[in-house]
Amino acid sequence: MTQTILILPTDGPGLYEFTAAAEAFVREAGVASGLLTLFCQHTSCSLTVQENADPDVQVDLQNFFARLVPDGDAASMRWMIHTAEGPDDMPAHIKTALTQTHLSVPVMKSRLALGTWQGIYLFEHRTRPHQRRVVLHLS
Amino acid sequence: MTQTILILPTDGPGLYEFTAAAEAFVREAGVASGLLTLFCQHTSCSLTVQENADPDVQVDLQNFFARLVPDGDAASMRWMIHTAEGPDDMPAHIKTALTQTHLSVPVMKSRLALGTWQGIYLFEHRTRPHQRRVVLHLS
Amino acid sequence: MTQTILILPTDGPGLYEFTAAAEAFVREAGVASGLLTLFCQHTSCSLTVQENADPDVQVDLQNFFARLVPDGDAASMRWMIHTAEGPDDMPAHIKTALTQTHLSVPVMKSRLALGTWQGIYLFEHRTRPHQRRVVLHLS
Repeated sequence: MTQTILILPTDGPGLYEFTAAAEAFVREAGVASGLLTLFCQHTSCSLTVQENADPDVQVDLQNFFARLVPDGDAASMRWMIHTAEGPDDMPAHIKTALTQTHLSVPVMKSRLALGTWQGIYLFEHRTRPHQRRVVLHLS
Repeated sequence: MTQTILILPTDGPGLYEFTAAAEAFVREAGVASGLLTLFCQHTSCSLTVQENADPDVQVDLQNFFARLVPDGDAASMRWMIHTAEGPDDMPAHIKTALTQTHLSVPVMKSRLALGTWQGIYLFEHRTRPHQRRVVLHLS
Repeated sequence: MTQTILILPTDGPGLYEFTAAAEAFVREAGVASGLLTLFCQHTSCSLTVQENADPDVQVDLQNFFARLVPDGDAASMRWMIHTAEGPDDMPAHIKTALTQTHLSVPVMKSRLALGTWQGIYLFEHRTRPHQRRVVLHLS
């Protein structure tokens, strides 16, 4: 069993791929078969596995969530009461609930068993820059 | 490896925190490093990691889902066909699909590696009181 | 630790139950207590645990997602830019992000610790037939 914490800087809403960092952790552990679990220590950003071929997918994905859960100063979201931390905070919590706080990916033949077009992403929902923490646990 | 089943009573829609019960299970197991998996044995309530600082977050979260998936007797949801178990049943299945049936949280230094503001919640989607079962698996 | 890859054929949008295949894998492994992780190697279909009693639940679930994320040629979704792979492709990625790419289910007394009405489903979001790959990892 091996564990570490990745620090991922973000600079506004969007998907930040960190597949390479996760793969490097698995490679250094030297494990042939196992399970990598990734856990995001925040409630205003999340994790997702998405296509890493066409970057337009990431743009559309972010736009879908921005339309489904517009910032709290939008007319459609004026019912929100948790607004003290800014109009992008409560929508960030909701987007996190709609996606994942953790992922688990099997390791086969010493590599993450991702599909051909799959990448691992941090999905940032807040406007301001952040340093995000993701725990990696390999067993 | 240690396993148990928590019974969590609920009394209508909303988020029910049970972080303390999960932490107690980890503490009693006496494990320094590991992975706690929580599995909800129902399809009309779910699990989520959310902010445990301002309770308004929980109110807004519940309201968002109630607006996105209103009960089946709402004009906007009259297309539903699974209505025999009440107007809140099919929306509960949908809200479950949109959130999580299971969570995995690493254990580091004998404690759950939750972020500063993270709590573990059962998200009840049904109106009537229930006894909910969550399997805890620590490895 | 045991691993395998299931190949699941799909024939258009909908939920495809494969609980029996997952249970057979656990049974053949002969493990009394453990954790089964299921990982979907695609970004246009996903995994979900849902009710396996009334098939109407699956119809309503699929219809909800089709209404929330209509195909990209619907007037409401003309803002999408990732359209080269067809009008059902980007919506499939979004529906995947809104559901799960992986699941973990504890094994107790040599059986998956599913609730009475729970089944494990592949949720296909694409129109054309596919062969889908799901990695099973038991530890």
